[in-house]
Amino acid sequence: MKRILTGDRTTGRLHLGHYVGSLQNRVKLQEEYDTFIILADVQALTTHFERPELINKSIYDVAIDNLSVGLNPNRITMFLQSKIGAIAELTVFYSMLVSVNSLRHNPTIKTEVTQYGYDDLSYGFLGYPVSQAADITFCSADLVPVGEDQLPHIEQARKIVRRFNDLYGNGKIIIKQPDALISNTPRLIGLDGNSKMGKSLGNAIYLSDTSEEVNLKVRSAITDKNRIKRTDPGNPEVCTVSKYHEAFNCSEYQNICEMCRSASIGCAACKTLLSKKINSLLAPFREKRAYYEERKAEVRDIILAGSNRANLIGNETMEVVKKAMSIYM
Amino acid sequence: MKRILTGDRTTGRLHLGHYVGSLQNRVKLQEEYDTFIILADVQALTTHFERPELINKSIYDVAIDNLSVGLNPNRITMFLQSKIGAIAELTVFYSMLVSVNSLRHNPTIKTEVTQYGYDDLSYGFLGYPVSQAADITFCSADLVPVGEDQLPHIEQARKIVRRFNDLYGNGKIIIKQPDALISNTPRLIGLDGNSKMGKSLGNAIYLSDTSEEVNLKVRSAITDKNRIKRTDPGNPEVCTVSKYHEAFNCSEYQNICEMCRSASIGCAACKTLLSKKINSLLAPFREKRAYYEERKAEVRDIILAGSNRANLIGNETMEVVKKAMSIYM
Repeated sequence: MKRILTGDRTTGRLHLGHYVGSLQNRVKLQEEYDTFIILADVQALTTHFERPELINKSIYDVAIDNLSVGLNPNRITMFLQSKIGAIAELTVFYSMLVSVNSLRHNPTIKTEVTQYGYDDLSYGFLGYPVSQAADITFCSADLVPVGEDQLPHIEQARKIVRRFNDLYGNGKIIIKQPDALISNTPRLIGLDGNSKMGKSLGNAIYLSDTSEEVNLKVRSAITDKNRIKRTDPGNPEVCTVSKYHEAFNCSEYQNICEMCRSASIGCAACKTLLSKKINSLLAPFREKRAYYEERKAEVRDIILAGSNRANLIGNETMEVVKKAMSIYM
Repeated sequence: MKRILTGDRTTGRLHLGHYVGSLQNRVKLQEEYDTFIILADVQALTTHFERPELINKSIYDVAIDNLSVGLNPNRITMFLQSKIGAIAELTVFYSMLVSVNSLRHNPTIKTEVTQYGYDDLSYGFLGYPVSQAADITFCSADLVPVGEDQLPHIEQARKIVRRFNDLYGNGKIIIKQPDALISNTPRLIGLDGNSKMGKSLGNAIYLSDTSEEVNLKVRSAITDKNRIKRTDPGNPEVCTVSKYHEAFNCSEYQNICEMCRSASIGCAACKTLLSKKINSLLAPFREKRAYYEERKAEVRDIILAGSNRANLIGNETMEVVKKAMSIYM
């Protein structure tokens, strides 16, 4: 069974954007792959080091988000990044093999820097691709499920691994070079029509939202601004609700677009249809969530057991790595 | 008993410059302080990552250099940096609290960059002051014996600690702010008159040199180039050998300068005097060295025991640190 490494930063609850873009796929992948789910609390520090309580709370929230959508704790290995010493150690070792310049030119770093500013760019933030390479390789993951936009990170990780093996492998593979498992999942736009549903953008429907919250949020979603009266024909191309129908109500999507264009359905009714669809998707998740919310100790045990397994593997990796680097005695 | 942290990068055997600048002082300090000696093999990687065998061999060499000059294995805690998980973890945590800009302006980084070039500046090299802060604080060292030129490093470490405590201390001290213990030891010039005796400069007398090697090396030392004939008066100000007399033959130094200026001693005789002095300094070191060279397993045990003690302390530190940062479960 090949191993995949995927996961989330613990910077807040997960939303439908995460579900569509990643979690949904993860649930399928666990059947085929030895699935490692990282709860990336250390990586969360790169942007949220001033909000430790949020990070701590999110460890449970994100774990439960994952479990609620159907990740099977008996099948996956869910672990807490800060518990894995091998990741910190590999990060330090890999640091020597990456130039500051190449990190500055990493497209993801560039994008993030645009968001957070250049002046105060922290050393840790700049090293984000280095620590990600450590996340992937400490457990010898074969594959990393990513969207196209994350390919540069995987390429950076592959580059570090090649450099490491060239330097220390003496013709042998010491560290496994990971491959990207590209999933062409759509990016879910925000309720406000913003190109991205984001935790920090206030435009998200959370997996943990109640059905009332979903109803309210869907009612607030931006539709075609030029459709003033109920009798005006609408344009689904510019309507957030239509995009959500495409994602969550695929079988009726074409039909609904047709009704919108011919004004045979109004926005309120269209939104009610969508809310029902989303709520019926979330209903089984809510059941599982309720189970785990009442059993925090069980969630803790799942994460600790996963972290223990990850540490066993990580320690083996470090033994081989240190031997290859002649850092041992 | 206050704790000090000092040590050496494992990038080759130590020489008289290290002895004069640091080891000699260390031997005294062990009487007064709980002395932690770091064998900095990970930091050695920042510049020597392409020479792992040298780093590995140097672990023993540097340990024996330290023991041979009189560091008492029953008194000190000598440990291998790569064995201390807390250092890697703290390095990663501290990374978030230091801006790339402030590292670029660190004078020591600037100096080293001049030597090794800017283009290929590695991410790990740039983070050298960050990892040094981790070395110092993982064991809550009170003091770090340094020369004036290393003060910026200590100041960087203090700054990181203050930032950490401000962010996560909630009014309390989580990490101890280290102080510099400034020793105004002279810098020993090289045999070639170069301003610094350096491992990589080929101008060093090693603590492990035999008496024959010392004699040969001293004979090759640069003297006053204007003193052509035995009868010419010399200028001790521009003579390497005179500087060494000042360092290793202090009581006769003034007298020897006088004899040089009046041409009542020739360079050959002056060098012979110096060789004798250096060899008598090194004689007891050679005895201890011979003991340990024959007992590598004992050296290994000293380092492993020290690393175990350091790890116990480091693990306690990490527990407190992670609790303060809310990175725990």
